[in-house]
Amino acid sequence: MAAFGSILAPAVKDHRIGICNNGLPSGQSGKQETMRDLDSIRINGNRLWSRLMRMAQVGATPAGGCNRQALTDEDVEGRELFISWCIQADCDVRIDEIGNIFARRPGTSTDSPAVMTGSHLDTQPTGGRFDGIYGVLAGLEVIETLNDLGIPTRHPLDVVVWTNEEGCRFDTAMMGSAVWSGKLPLEEAYELRDQAGHSVLEELERGGQRGSFPVTPGPVKAAFETHIEQGPVLEQGSESIGIVTGVQHMSRHRVVIEGQEAHAGPTPMTMRKDPVMALSATLPRLYALANKHGPDGRVTIGCIDTLPGSSNTVPGRLEYTVDIRHPEEARYTAMLVELRDCIATCCDDLGLAWHHDCFWESPGVTFDRVCIDAVRTAVEITGVSHRDMISGAGHDACNLASQVPTSMIFIPCEGGISHNEAESIDPGMATAGANVLLHAMLHQARAEV
Amino acid sequence: MAAFGSILAPAVKDHRIGICNNGLPSGQSGKQETMRDLDSIRINGNRLWSRLMRMAQVGATPAGGCNRQALTDEDVEGRELFISWCIQADCDVRIDEIGNIFARRPGTSTDSPAVMTGSHLDTQPTGGRFDGIYGVLAGLEVIETLNDLGIPTRHPLDVVVWTNEEGCRFDTAMMGSAVWSGKLPLEEAYELRDQAGHSVLEELERGGQRGSFPVTPGPVKAAFETHIEQGPVLEQGSESIGIVTGVQHMSRHRVVIEGQEAHAGPTPMTMRKDPVMALSATLPRLYALANKHGPDGRVTIGCIDTLPGSSNTVPGRLEYTVDIRHPEEARYTAMLVELRDCIATCCDDLGLAWHHDCFWESPGVTFDRVCIDAVRTAVEITGVSHRDMISGAGHDACNLASQVPTSMIFIPCEGGISHNEAESIDPGMATAGANVLLHAMLHQARAEV
Repeated sequence: MAAFGSILAPAVKDHRIGICNNGLPSGQSGKQETMRDLDSIRINGNRLWSRLMRMAQVGATPAGGCNRQALTDEDVEGRELFISWCIQADCDVRIDEIGNIFARRPGTSTDSPAVMTGSHLDTQPTGGRFDGIYGVLAGLEVIETLNDLGIPTRHPLDVVVWTNEEGCRFDTAMMGSAVWSGKLPLEEAYELRDQAGHSVLEELERGGQRGSFPVTPGPVKAAFETHIEQGPVLEQGSESIGIVTGVQHMSRHRVVIEGQEAHAGPTPMTMRKDPVMALSATLPRLYALANKHGPDGRVTIGCIDTLPGSSNTVPGRLEYTVDIRHPEEARYTAMLVELRDCIATCCDDLGLAWHHDCFWESPGVTFDRVCIDAVRTAVEITGVSHRDMISGAGHDACNLASQVPTSMIFIPCEGGISHNEAESIDPGMATAGANVLLHAMLHQARAEV
Repeated sequence: MAAFGSILAPAVKDHRIGICNNGLPSGQSGKQETMRDLDSIRINGNRLWSRLMRMAQVGATPAGGCNRQALTDEDVEGRELFISWCIQADCDVRIDEIGNIFARRPGTSTDSPAVMTGSHLDTQPTGGRFDGIYGVLAGLEVIETLNDLGIPTRHPLDVVVWTNEEGCRFDTAMMGSAVWSGKLPLEEAYELRDQAGHSVLEELERGGQRGSFPVTPGPVKAAFETHIEQGPVLEQGSESIGIVTGVQHMSRHRVVIEGQEAHAGPTPMTMRKDPVMALSATLPRLYALANKHGPDGRVTIGCIDTLPGSSNTVPGRLEYTVDIRHPEEARYTAMLVELRDCIATCCDDLGLAWHHDCFWESPGVTFDRVCIDAVRTAVEITGVSHRDMISGAGHDACNLASQVPTSMIFIPCEGGISHNEAESIDPGMATAGANVLLHAMLHQARAEV
């Protein structure tokens, strides 16, 4: 593992802080805590909330959300604010070549692999105040709590900000973690361009966010990502914590049906080549497909387009999208087969030409059993209501899970609303989630390798 | 009835031709034809076809269609070409205040009401060569055929070009005939504006197409409109002529369903407010509605719009249009009731707010029995295959029918395709339709009042 602190981000060179000491010499603790003692420690919910609110001022939108798209001036301002807090918390900070920020609280054993947490600070153009940000600041709060209490850990603790998770400005979501995990070549990421033609490389350099640290996964014992659920399940169940055991298999499909334009008046129903008739036969079968593979199967028809789109013309062409998700591979695969059969049958019955293609696919992830158990233990220690669940959305943790033991912790968000300026969470839930993260990380960071 | 020829279009003042004489003194015929003799006469199919082709050169589009939107330079050029042909055919030509062109072959009885035919010369932006134009030029061919053969009629024959039938540039279809029949006030028609802000009045004056003749229905004994079917029924039945007995009742409806945007991943199917689920329940019932009121019931869903239109987001809003048609009033009314019930049930079942409004309605028309019989007689005289049918589309004849005895004659168009540059007809069918028009008009124009 590369020595920490040797390669620092240009922006923070003057603020470099050495190994955290807090009066605790490396390798020793101020007193000999028992696990029982540690079970009672809690994070500072007010500090966490005030930092969430402070970060929300950067790129704040009139409707109460945030616009900090990746590598814009606002994103850079948010990142520098985070770095300044890390330095105040005596962390070593480094930035890698794709701009991922790593803030480290060293462990007592210099050679031990890290216990990692983190998420992202970038937002959608009309994004909320918590998606990603909560996971980053909950991680920082864990470090500060341990600092306050003078509690050392054997393993170092890393809080990471992954670059361009949202993929809205540069069209590749979870970019920074994809490069880190070897799924996306660095040079390919550098060449991604926004609509104005600016590349990721240019924008990293313009904002002083291209570090010199190589983008490779260092030794990591366990990685946790705390995140808002972005769905309504926890809220509806009045549960505080989701123990996330994996991520759904998911894919997006485009269906094109060719009909024949015809005047709505003179053309008898039986003489039409109407692609909406095929849609009429298909939709109930698609929802039945979700139901058949329920309760975890998901079918979403997000876009439907009729061409030419005239109220008195039978459409000559219909396009629609289908998003298919299921946590179990066998059922997911069955859904794909049944989707195609359904499209084929409904169009062939009407003699309509059709085309189907899958334009995006993300295989499911099963999180690490040890990490899941660490979260489960933390939930029991903190005594909060909880449920096991599968993440419906993709997160940086999906990329990490291909390289290092990983799991996630969800907290509820109001009405399940996310990617929206109205995104909101309860401060009590924010505290609960950070406490679970604290004990999950502590469980892993104090235990033997 | 106002004296003909007293008020002429400015563009044709110098070409004014008096009463048609063809060597036939008013009130006399060259010889005493029997009805039997007249049964054998036929129009000149080659002349009709060559004129159709010549007119198609005006505003010709690269793909073989026409762009002569109402009162554009191209439309004016087409109108002037038609007027020049009428003058060569010894017609009196007048233009009224809304630009409708009336070309008259006088009758032997100066006080007799006219036997009228006509349609329109304007086209859609990517229109065809026959929609409307065929009906106008078939009328002119009838006059020229009678001129050639020296056959007088008791009643005058009028060939009319109605202004702005298409309603694509100025957003009111069948405008000229609507003003003529008293359904649309002249001043209101004058104030219609195109997207560039030019009014009908400005464009009538710019092109010299605003006549001084008042827009009022003169005495008309019978009116016929010959038109391409714009549907596939005649072609599929290998029939040459449609004896059109009426026009469907028709209306267009907009349905809006409010859902709630949600991420396609984390939101279980049962917790969604998905307007596409309502559409899924509605569409099969709408097509069943058409079937229940078949074979004449028509249901067309021409536009479907999902908002925000993202493949991994449950739409927050869905809009679609429904075009409903039926020739029988009782069934049409039942369909409207059932449409509303269907929308309400499907949305209410899912707890989704919805809104429905009818944004356009055109009541059905039953054509005049005597005019229909005249066409039927003509079909028998000419010995062509035929069927009775209802027009699925609106035509100027719908407006005329509210004021004067009216019916229509359809000929097949290839593949039922219309409002399309590929619109095509068979020259033999063009001839057949004009022969039926000839004998229908002759039947009415020679008979006693």
